[in-house]
Amino acid sequence: MRRANTQLQSDRRAEILAAAERCFVRSGFHQTSMQEICAEAGMSPGNLYRYFPSKEALIAGISERNRADAAAELAAVSDAPSFFDGLAQLAQYHVVERPMAEVALCVEIMAESRRNPEVARVFGEIEGEVKGKLMGLLTAAAARGEISRDINFDAATDILAALGDGISWRRAVDPSFNTEAALPLILHMVRCLLMEPHPNPSTEETKT
Amino acid sequence: MRRANTQLQSDRRAEILAAAERCFVRSGFHQTSMQEICAEAGMSPGNLYRYFPSKEALIAGISERNRADAAAELAAVSDAPSFFDGLAQLAQYHVVERPMAEVALCVEIMAESRRNPEVARVFGEIEGEVKGKLMGLLTAAAARGEISRDINFDAATDILAALGDGISWRRAVDPSFNTEAALPLILHMVRCLLMEPHPNPSTEETKT
Repeated sequence: MRRANTQLQSDRRAEILAAAERCFVRSGFHQTSMQEICAEAGMSPGNLYRYFPSKEALIAGISERNRADAAAELAAVSDAPSFFDGLAQLAQYHVVERPMAEVALCVEIMAESRRNPEVARVFGEIEGEVKGKLMGLLTAAAARGEISRDINFDAATDILAALGDGISWRRAVDPSFNTEAALPLILHMVRCLLMEPHPNPSTEETKT
Repeated sequence: MRRANTQLQSDRRAEILAAAERCFVRSGFHQTSMQEICAEAGMSPGNLYRYFPSKEALIAGISERNRADAAAELAAVSDAPSFFDGLAQLAQYHVVERPMAEVALCVEIMAESRRNPEVARVFGEIEGEVKGKLMGLLTAAAARGEISRDINFDAATDILAALGDGISWRRAVDPSFNTEAALPLILHMVRCLLMEPHPNPSTEETKT
């Protein structure tokens, strides 16, 4: 009985988060009222507030759900036959398949994180965790000899995260972006980043 | 006399746009009122409205200024001793030096462009022009033999734009991002993208 209740509460939370996501994507974080979210979720304010007392709590809930999804996707990379097979699957999802609403809301959350300390805290924690897992994948692949050991892992992690963001967000605003044509070239670039020792900044390719 | 007036008006427009930019970055596009922008610019509403009748007009003005800056930066690439020298200078500016307020506001404009047709129109026009110039640089470099002729120029242009966006935006939200360490690796990746014939999507590296 307690188990069924817990499941019911978890389903209800997921439904509310999906409703809030639709509202934020449609109207933006600030122009969306809690009343609109109640209407979209088909529940009373009193009931909704028991789950999420504020829009910040909803953003935190959506971000936490995205974090859990990202953790599962990164875990799938380490279960793939090879690092680059796993990475290609991850890229296929992020570059081609990921729902546009989710991508659009990430842009919204990112803009908000620059002004709202509570959103910045949640965003920073999740970013840190996802980057940590990505770095773990890279160091494990290097230990297996699948990628170079002589790369700057911190910088490579940041660049992969930035590339993933940039590609996702461009999809959300540029309808002419042909992501299926771009995907193999992106993977080719990433192989170069990870397979070859990194150039020394003091001698190569930097301009001051 | 007419010339001095024109210069004065142009300076005044630039001052108003800078004031609006500071307000939008601080408070966001929707939470900023025209009154706040008047106060920031130190002018009366009646006077400001003669230059810019709405927040959309201000966003259009800021975007137009950014477009002119981007056009000048891309023109500088074609004036550099070699394509990759020019690209390294462009990347140094965009990855390391570009003012954070400008980057932050781009995220704001992008989020707004998904909801506001007038902002979407301005954003789309400018994006199209900047991408056209970038494509022109690539095809000219290929004609001079500085990069491969056997690449998908459309896809390469989209990827460079996405990479530039992703790197800029990550700077704006992730204080731990060491852009100086990342820059040479980014240029190394871009060389791979542009110097080698692109892999054929039907035979390599794609997973379905």
